[in-house]
Amino acid sequence: MQQIEINSDFIQRIKNLIIQGNDTELKQLLNQLYAADIAEIFEDVNLTEGTYLYRLLDNEISADVLVELDEDDREKLLASFTSKEIAEEIIENIESDDAADMIAELPDKKQEEVLAHIEDTEQVNDIVDLLTYEEGSAGSIMAKELISVNVIWTINQSIREMRKQAENVEKIYTIYVIDNKETLLGRLSLKKLLFAKNTPKTNIKEVYNSDELITVTPDIDVEEVAQIMEKYNLIVLPVVDADHILLGRITIDDVVEVIKEEAEKDYQMASGISEDVEHDDSVWDHTRARIPWLLIGMAGGLAAAQIIGIFDITKHPEMVIFIPLIAATGGNVGVQSAAIVVQGLANNTLKQNQTGKLLFKELGVGLFNGVLLSALLFIINQFFGRDIRLALSVSISLIAVITFAALFGTFIPLTLNKYKVDPAVATGPFITTINDVFGLVIYFTVTGMVYQYLV
Amino acid sequence: MQQIEINSDFIQRIKNLIIQGNDTELKQLLNQLYAADIAEIFEDVNLTEGTYLYRLLDNEISADVLVELDEDDREKLLASFTSKEIAEEIIENIESDDAADMIAELPDKKQEEVLAHIEDTEQVNDIVDLLTYEEGSAGSIMAKELISVNVIWTINQSIREMRKQAENVEKIYTIYVIDNKETLLGRLSLKKLLFAKNTPKTNIKEVYNSDELITVTPDIDVEEVAQIMEKYNLIVLPVVDADHILLGRITIDDVVEVIKEEAEKDYQMASGISEDVEHDDSVWDHTRARIPWLLIGMAGGLAAAQIIGIFDITKHPEMVIFIPLIAATGGNVGVQSAAIVVQGLANNTLKQNQTGKLLFKELGVGLFNGVLLSALLFIINQFFGRDIRLALSVSISLIAVITFAALFGTFIPLTLNKYKVDPAVATGPFITTINDVFGLVIYFTVTGMVYQYLV
Repeated sequence: MQQIEINSDFIQRIKNLIIQGNDTELKQLLNQLYAADIAEIFEDVNLTEGTYLYRLLDNEISADVLVELDEDDREKLLASFTSKEIAEEIIENIESDDAADMIAELPDKKQEEVLAHIEDTEQVNDIVDLLTYEEGSAGSIMAKELISVNVIWTINQSIREMRKQAENVEKIYTIYVIDNKETLLGRLSLKKLLFAKNTPKTNIKEVYNSDELITVTPDIDVEEVAQIMEKYNLIVLPVVDADHILLGRITIDDVVEVIKEEAEKDYQMASGISEDVEHDDSVWDHTRARIPWLLIGMAGGLAAAQIIGIFDITKHPEMVIFIPLIAATGGNVGVQSAAIVVQGLANNTLKQNQTGKLLFKELGVGLFNGVLLSALLFIINQFFGRDIRLALSVSISLIAVITFAALFGTFIPLTLNKYKVDPAVATGPFITTINDVFGLVIYFTVTGMVYQYLV
Repeated sequence: MQQIEINSDFIQRIKNLIIQGNDTELKQLLNQLYAADIAEIFEDVNLTEGTYLYRLLDNEISADVLVELDEDDREKLLASFTSKEIAEEIIENIESDDAADMIAELPDKKQEEVLAHIEDTEQVNDIVDLLTYEEGSAGSIMAKELISVNVIWTINQSIREMRKQAENVEKIYTIYVIDNKETLLGRLSLKKLLFAKNTPKTNIKEVYNSDELITVTPDIDVEEVAQIMEKYNLIVLPVVDADHILLGRITIDDVVEVIKEEAEKDYQMASGISEDVEHDDSVWDHTRARIPWLLIGMAGGLAAAQIIGIFDITKHPEMVIFIPLIAATGGNVGVQSAAIVVQGLANNTLKQNQTGKLLFKELGVGLFNGVLLSALLFIINQFFGRDIRLALSVSISLIAVITFAALFGTFIPLTLNKYKVDPAVATGPFITTINDVFGLVIYFTVTGMVYQYLV
């Protein structure tokens, strides 16, 4: 195995070898690579080339490559496989969680066919069981393969049984100790097993660690799983049912994906993208993901148009020049405040009962920022020799707009969260738009008053 | 140990016990908790209460609690400790990477004092070595503690040596195999050690796995470390120097933090927050983190004011009502496009040489979205009975603004990335502001032309 950079030269070399039909050299090349690197190659070749390469892979690694592939690429590749091939060449070589994910992606009819072709009935049961858990639940990312020993066994017997179990388990993280009913009792430390001076006849009961383990039930949300594993620095987490029966385990690599996806979702939300799109998706996918937010923005723009229409701007046409400044600042401040809340909630450092305290803080931040920026703007306007009434109007408005936007940007995501709506909705175009509109109302009202009283 | 929710009732109970001076019950309560949970309590009590609780903790767990604490809370707590206490009660009980991080946070003078008080010279060397690596490098998050065996040892001798090493290592992830010069040769599988039928006299040479391991050098960026560990699903990654000498190891829990921080940084950038602030930081911290972006926004607003000033809006005052709509849409589209690029670059799925292709795609998305929204807006304006010239002006402008913003939002982050500037800078207020200004120029120009030719 080699660490190699999959760059465009390398891809070109692969493509040339495919054209030449030089299977010997291709096989040699692929044999040196990790499954994740081969999967990266598949992303840069077309389906015909991908299928060609796939047939050259060793059985050991081909299933792993499929696991590493993008969902889209995998679907395309699998379409050319029979149900029997999928069952025997792929599913039987991968862990139950990956197998369940892969089968779930198949069309309903093919799902049943594939399951019918798996010979190992225990594996079929595991997969069928995993398929019942809802997407986004702890059960949906857990694997059934694990190493467990019965508390009544001797060390010797345990080693024998573990050897059998280890054939199905890629990495040993923890040895779970269970009773006859498969209730989780604790764990057996690898250190103890390796280094303690036990005789082969020693009972597990005498050496295992019976401290209560951190566990989750299969119904809890994957985000909560991620928080627990992060908080307690766990690399593996056992899943148990209500009676504490051991059902499976969740490993950190699956959770890292959840953490990333969660962060990306928030980021996309803040940027006004409502579905998970990537740069290489189609124009149509991009349009569908982006246009809802643009429509919200447009609705805001139309509302703003109505508001401007109400006020007679021909009386003081010079005030028009600050419309963009007022609108933009309100939007920017609102997004800043909302982002602080969204992040605090995501990290679990902000709790709902801190609403009052946080609004008070934002009032402070808003007023402080507002006064600073307004003072600066007033000086600039004096420097440009603008009408003192206009300068006063916009500076007073700016303080009000910033303070309002800070409070509003804090209040909305907290309220959404209270009613179990994803608070991240409140970042991005939503908050910006509302602040635009309110900002204008404030600006026109203040300007009207200033011009009326200051002649 | 118990899984317990640290809620406000629990905190109140702790606070009451402190007031009563009921150390027995407090100790009993704390003894049942994990270090991470105790750290959570510390976040919700004041410094006096925290110090009180800390002194009640068992030595085993107190150092771990410190590791789990927020940097600010830890700094405050440690201020009341002598250098000797820090060295003997804390540093000597934690792993080298945490120790180096903690010492790096101390004032320079105290750093030296603490190091002078550590008795284990090997540990001092490890820490001093770790302190030399730059923040954000692989070296800065690696730990020195690991399990390694010499390739010339027998299994028996290895077990003896590993038992000694295991005292300093919290969890055994991998057993590294090295030669006399400490060159990394491969690894010894735990499965093999546990289950293979080796005699105690078998040589490591005969049983170890000599496949080349994935490694990193200490100078590479932590983000790259995170990408490698994610890609290959690693829970531990060995760090080697240029001669392949084994220096230390990086574990997945440290990398999860890096992944989260990285995602948060991008998110904050997109929301117009330039420093890492959290909801519980001071008003001053918040102001400092937010005001630079508001200033950029204000500069954009002033530029927009100048532009509006150039055009004589009194000729067609009705056109003013669509200023917010044009500005907001340009900003929204630009941020969407920039976010797609930033995310593609962060995931390593987008490469610099795809610039042309991506710009072409965005041209398509921009035109498509632009035509859809403009057509809708035209119909709405007809419905409201607005002047056909105004309706035409704003719809034509909107197509141009959306297309321009999509291209610009794509181009800027790609260009920043090319010149090694964080592309995330291009999301948030920066792109919005520029698009606001350009949008207005387009709108005024188009409107001028429409009114001139369509009388």
